[in-house]
Amino acid sequence: MRIALVAPSCPLKREASDRLEAIAAARGDFELLVNPQCFLADGHFAGPDEARLGALREVMGDPSIDAVWFARGGYGSNRIAEAAVIDVPAAAQNKLYMGYSDAGFLLAGLHKAGLDVAWGPMPQDVLRAGGELAVNRALDWLVRRDPDTLEPALDGPAMAFNLTVLSNLLGTSLEPDFTGVDLLIEDLSEQLYRIDRSMFHVTASAAIQSVRRIRLGRVLDVLPNDTDFGADEADIVEQWCNRSGIAFGGRADIGHDVLNRVVPFERKNR
Amino acid sequence: MRIALVAPSCPLKREASDRLEAIAAARGDFELLVNPQCFLADGHFAGPDEARLGALREVMGDPSIDAVWFARGGYGSNRIAEAAVIDVPAAAQNKLYMGYSDAGFLLAGLHKAGLDVAWGPMPQDVLRAGGELAVNRALDWLVRRDPDTLEPALDGPAMAFNLTVLSNLLGTSLEPDFTGVDLLIEDLSEQLYRIDRSMFHVTASAAIQSVRRIRLGRVLDVLPNDTDFGADEADIVEQWCNRSGIAFGGRADIGHDVLNRVVPFERKNR
Repeated sequence: MRIALVAPSCPLKREASDRLEAIAAARGDFELLVNPQCFLADGHFAGPDEARLGALREVMGDPSIDAVWFARGGYGSNRIAEAAVIDVPAAAQNKLYMGYSDAGFLLAGLHKAGLDVAWGPMPQDVLRAGGELAVNRALDWLVRRDPDTLEPALDGPAMAFNLTVLSNLLGTSLEPDFTGVDLLIEDLSEQLYRIDRSMFHVTASAAIQSVRRIRLGRVLDVLPNDTDFGADEADIVEQWCNRSGIAFGGRADIGHDVLNRVVPFERKNR
Repeated sequence: MRIALVAPSCPLKREASDRLEAIAAARGDFELLVNPQCFLADGHFAGPDEARLGALREVMGDPSIDAVWFARGGYGSNRIAEAAVIDVPAAAQNKLYMGYSDAGFLLAGLHKAGLDVAWGPMPQDVLRAGGELAVNRALDWLVRRDPDTLEPALDGPAMAFNLTVLSNLLGTSLEPDFTGVDLLIEDLSEQLYRIDRSMFHVTASAAIQSVRRIRLGRVLDVLPNDTDFGADEADIVEQWCNRSGIAFGGRADIGHDVLNRVVPFERKNR
C-alpha cells in the first residue's frame, strides 16, 4: 500500500511531514511517499500552478501508487483542478484521492471525472492538538477502508464540502452531479452573515436543489459581526433549506478539527 | 423631485440621516423622505425581512417618489430582492434606484425586472471623511443626471458590482443579462486569496463570459495573508480574464470610498 502526498494548495510544514513519517514507521501498514513539491513555496502557494499540477499528474499517472492524499488545504487547488482532469491517465482510476477544505475543488473535479474520492483528514492535521487521531482515521480508511472512520449517519450516496468552497465551484466546470446525494457542509473562519450569503447562493442553484438533503457539520471559529447576527448556523442553514425546498437532515460529524470523519463520494461510473 | 431612503440591508445611522437632512435643506433641489424602516434593527438587519421588503415595496409603488436611494450596504438585500420584483407595480417604472456594495443584489434584480438602476454612493457614505462629496455626487445624478458624476471612462452599456456580491448572485434568479456590457468590479476587506477565488468563480460563468470586458475598481482594506500572496489585485483580475478569454479593460474609478463614481445600468426594455 503506497500513499503519495502532494500539495495542490499551500505548502506542507516539515514538522507535519516528519510526524507523518514517524506514524508510517510505527503503523507499518503503508509506505509514505512525500512528493518534494509539498515543500515548494511561491507566494501563497506550494509552488507555481505548473509545479502543483505537475506533481498531481505525476502521482495520478503512477500505477504503483494506491492513494493520493492532499497534504493540506489553504487555497489554490481550484487553479489546477480543471487541468488535472484533462485526459485522465488510466493509472489514475485505481486509486483513492482524499482531502477536505480547499481540496474540495479537486474532490469535485476528480469525482466528476469518474475517480474515487473521499472527504477526510489531511496530513497537516497532525499538527492540531490530538491530530494523530485525525490522520490515523484518514489512514484507516486509506489503508483498510475501516468503516469506523466514516461519518456515522451516512445513509446512501453522500458528498461533503466546505460551504464557501462549494459556493465558489458552482457553475464552474468542476461542478459535480449532486442528484440524490446527502450533501454535508461545514465552514471555518467566516462571519455568520457570510454563511447566510453562501447559503443563499448555494440553495438557489438548481444543481444543489437536486440533493436528497443537506446536513450541517461544524461551523468553527465564527468571526464576530458588528452586531449579533440574530440566528445561529443551524437556524441559517435550516431556513435556506426551507426557502429553497431542500430537506434539512440535521447535523453531521465533519469539520475543521480532529474529529472530522470520512465521507466517500459515490462513484458515478460504478 | 422626491427621493425616498429605505434600508434593505443594515440600519442607517441617525447621524447620517441628520446630515442628509441638512444637505437636503442646503441644496433645496429635492425633498428627502427617510422611511422609518431605515432605523429598525433585528440582529444584523434593518428590521426583519418582511419590514425591509415592505418598506421597499411601499416606495416602489408610490407614484410621488422619483428615486429610491438605498441607505447603506452591509448584508441582507439578497434576502428580499427576489420578492421585491414579483408583480412589480406600474409606479416602480418611473424611478431611479441607486446604491452599491450589498445593494448590488437589488440592482441586479431590479435591472432584470426592467427598472432603472445605477451604482453610486449611498447616504451612509456621508459619515466617511469627506463624505459630503460622495453623497452630493449621488444626488447630482439622482436630481439632475449630471454627467460629471459618471465613471469617467464609461463607453457603452455598463454594470458595476462588488466582486463578492457578484460571485454570490451568479446562478440565482437575480442574475442579470451581462451580454456586451463593460463589467466594473471592486471589493473591500477580503484577503487576496479570496479575490483570486472569486475571480475563478466569476470568470468560469458563461453568463460573465458574455461581457464586453471587465474593468477593475479599487480593492480596499485588503486583509493580510499568512504569507504575501505573490500577486496584486490587478495581476489577479487580468490573469483570470486571460484564462477565461474575457478582455481586461484596465482600472475603473469605483470603490468603497468617497471618490466612488456613478455607473448607470443600461435598461434592457428601452
